[in-house]
Amino acid sequence: MVHVTANVMVSLDGYAAGPDRSQTSESPFGDCDFEMFARWRFGDVDANAAEIGSAVGADAYVMGRNMFTPGRGEHDLGWTGWWGDDPPYRAPVFVVTHHEREPLAMAGGTTFTFVTSGLRDAFHRAVAVAGDRAGEGGRVSIAGGVTTLNQCLAAGLVDELRLHVAPVVFGGGQRLFDGVPGVRLEQVSCRATEHVTHLVYRVLH
Amino acid sequence: MVHVTANVMVSLDGYAAGPDRSQTSESPFGDCDFEMFARWRFGDVDANAAEIGSAVGADAYVMGRNMFTPGRGEHDLGWTGWWGDDPPYRAPVFVVTHHEREPLAMAGGTTFTFVTSGLRDAFHRAVAVAGDRAGEGGRVSIAGGVTTLNQCLAAGLVDELRLHVAPVVFGGGQRLFDGVPGVRLEQVSCRATEHVTHLVYRVLH
Repeated sequence: MVHVTANVMVSLDGYAAGPDRSQTSESPFGDCDFEMFARWRFGDVDANAAEIGSAVGADAYVMGRNMFTPGRGEHDLGWTGWWGDDPPYRAPVFVVTHHEREPLAMAGGTTFTFVTSGLRDAFHRAVAVAGDRAGEGGRVSIAGGVTTLNQCLAAGLVDELRLHVAPVVFGGGQRLFDGVPGVRLEQVSCRATEHVTHLVYRVLH
Repeated sequence: MVHVTANVMVSLDGYAAGPDRSQTSESPFGDCDFEMFARWRFGDVDANAAEIGSAVGADAYVMGRNMFTPGRGEHDLGWTGWWGDDPPYRAPVFVVTHHEREPLAMAGGTTFTFVTSGLRDAFHRAVAVAGDRAGEGGRVSIAGGVTTLNQCLAAGLVDELRLHVAPVVFGGGQRLFDGVPGVRLEQVSCRATEHVTHLVYRVLH
């Protein structure tokens, strides 16, 4: 069985991004206190190396369109993601979108494939690729954003959920678990560093 | 300086109780999955003894009326709280209410004093009592419910916030941090047992 994980950064009041449509090319997480939210990720790299490392290294990824780009409508073919020429995924990434675009091969082994037939189809393609690449030990990661992750949780597709809780209160925005009542979880671990608490849960099916 | 702490149980999606007005005398936390929410507190007493112990032992307490009773309007004088004859507080408890009632002395040293002049007044009385009882080392605890705690957070009255996060998703109810955007916090510790993660934060003033 391919194992499906998801990593998500959340504020202490449960938001994973600023308000809907506040995203821009300069602020992928929209209108929020990004500095405090992501301080552990970019400011405390050594202290959080294990969790930063475990967020990558999957055999295939699924992401929503706005994890890839702030754009709406037809794709801007000049946009190649937020991550520069060599994105950290280094594996096939299936981007769920309503608008077609040819696959985009980047340095380091990352390929963005744009899937217009829905989240489930993108997910099954990622699972198949991960199985081909790594067999029973294959791993798919849901790379975000939070809307895509909530849809995956609601559909029962996620096996392990890793929350990175920053000590910041947004007071509004897009919420993890929005529209996902009743998901059953089991504690796996927690670890705190100066600017974050890492919480790992197994999702019960 | 008297030290002000608050303990609160929250669901993983940030709710501290079921929907407003769903509270009854049989369900102090209203309409929610209380069994999973409070399993650590009543089912895993040994594993969580440190946190259960640290939620009591203060020199004075402040609580909202609906932490004391599900009743609204004039007090039912036959109601003496949820905790039996010997409540775990064993110290003065100031209950914020709009309706007057004579102080209620219980076994073990708990006294409920009903304060109709507002939260701040109740808070200052608790601080004064804690200072009288224990001097500089005195401790006041905000005993809930979540509406009262949010008001205390908004007013900057809390020094240390202890969250007990259960691996359950309510999908609705009364939220911790509702109306308290921008509160600044600092990580202190985290500890997980089977059915809860205990998170401690210092509130920055």
